[in-house]
Amino acid sequence: MEKVKLFTTWSSPFVKRVTWALKLKGIEYEIIHEDHANKSPQLLKYNPVYKKAPVLLHNETPICDSLVILEYIDETWKDPTPFLPQDPLRRANERFWAKFAFYGYYKKQGKDQDEAKDTALARLRHVEQLLNESKFLSGERLGFLDLAFGWLADYSRPLEVVTGLKLLDEDSFPKLCSWRNRLLEIHAIKESWPDQETLMVRFQKIKETTSK
Amino acid sequence: MEKVKLFTTWSSPFVKRVTWALKLKGIEYEIIHEDHANKSPQLLKYNPVYKKAPVLLHNETPICDSLVILEYIDETWKDPTPFLPQDPLRRANERFWAKFAFYGYYKKQGKDQDEAKDTALARLRHVEQLLNESKFLSGERLGFLDLAFGWLADYSRPLEVVTGLKLLDEDSFPKLCSWRNRLLEIHAIKESWPDQETLMVRFQKIKETTSK
Repeated sequence: MEKVKLFTTWSSPFVKRVTWALKLKGIEYEIIHEDHANKSPQLLKYNPVYKKAPVLLHNETPICDSLVILEYIDETWKDPTPFLPQDPLRRANERFWAKFAFYGYYKKQGKDQDEAKDTALARLRHVEQLLNESKFLSGERLGFLDLAFGWLADYSRPLEVVTGLKLLDEDSFPKLCSWRNRLLEIHAIKESWPDQETLMVRFQKIKETTSK
Repeated sequence: MEKVKLFTTWSSPFVKRVTWALKLKGIEYEIIHEDHANKSPQLLKYNPVYKKAPVLLHNETPICDSLVILEYIDETWKDPTPFLPQDPLRRANERFWAKFAFYGYYKKQGKDQDEAKDTALARLRHVEQLLNESKFLSGERLGFLDLAFGWLADYSRPLEVVTGLKLLDEDSFPKLCSWRNRLLEIHAIKESWPDQETLMVRFQKIKETTSK
């Protein structure tokens, strides 16, 4: 009997990747909600290095780091469809882009924020190009890279409100906008869509805390 | 006919990972030396995002990011021995620790450097524990995690001189010191050992540049 638990925080985009992966693989799991401000002794025990969710606990063994967890899930539960392709070159490509980060820009202030915003937009242009003519970042089927970037779909609007920077603009990023709508058609993703208003309040709070 | 080229800079620890991997797999490759201060148009073309070596060019297709390249090499050339084990849990473990970075501490200044040094030592203690009773970080045989951390073996002494922080101290890190000696017994690693004095001058220069 498989025992799967997931340590989560409600607003983490990294937790979201794992939540979607588990749902798409049809894995039953128990959710352990963590409070950002008051982490449980279990979380600190299972992730002593980063002290953060997500932590996947599989038969009492912890696995940490959202991208590492995604590959673990993909290698452990091969059905119904793999997230990563078989071809080493395509795998390398998805792994390379999955590590491509620009999430933290909204926490920056002043000149640093201007630079971070420029970087975020430049990076988004790379991601837009990845879509080329395909439906998903991973190709014709949702895969590893879509899970890695999925946070963009449901976090972009609250982030836009908090930072004043339009992210998924129809004119600049038409392919990413279509991709966002396509993700929303997937049941596993739609059902774990966070409340946009509550997310906005959370981002505003983080921004204020880091600016002190 | 396989055509493999590696874009390198002589002092990069990330390039070193890939050099060792190619040698251990017995892959013939052409080296393209890059100058830190004057990067070639090819490098910028093949790695437009980070504009850095290492870039592996396999039959004219570029692969970037040292850890992504290691997995690509492991999946493409399976002989003589795989770097990563078969078991998903052990793979996840090696992937998690391979991403564990503390290389940049020597560039920091003042209070930031004190903090960065503390973090570096705390992180080294984690790595020391990984060795447990095994010969290598990956177990009884040199593997993925050893390649990821290999820079510690030949960069630690020049870094110690430049920062004044003893890294691989026999009393504090006896297992890592034995591991370092074991790595040096491996021909592929020994033959690409960089000159310690030249490395020291290079680190000193980087430190001075970043402190301006």
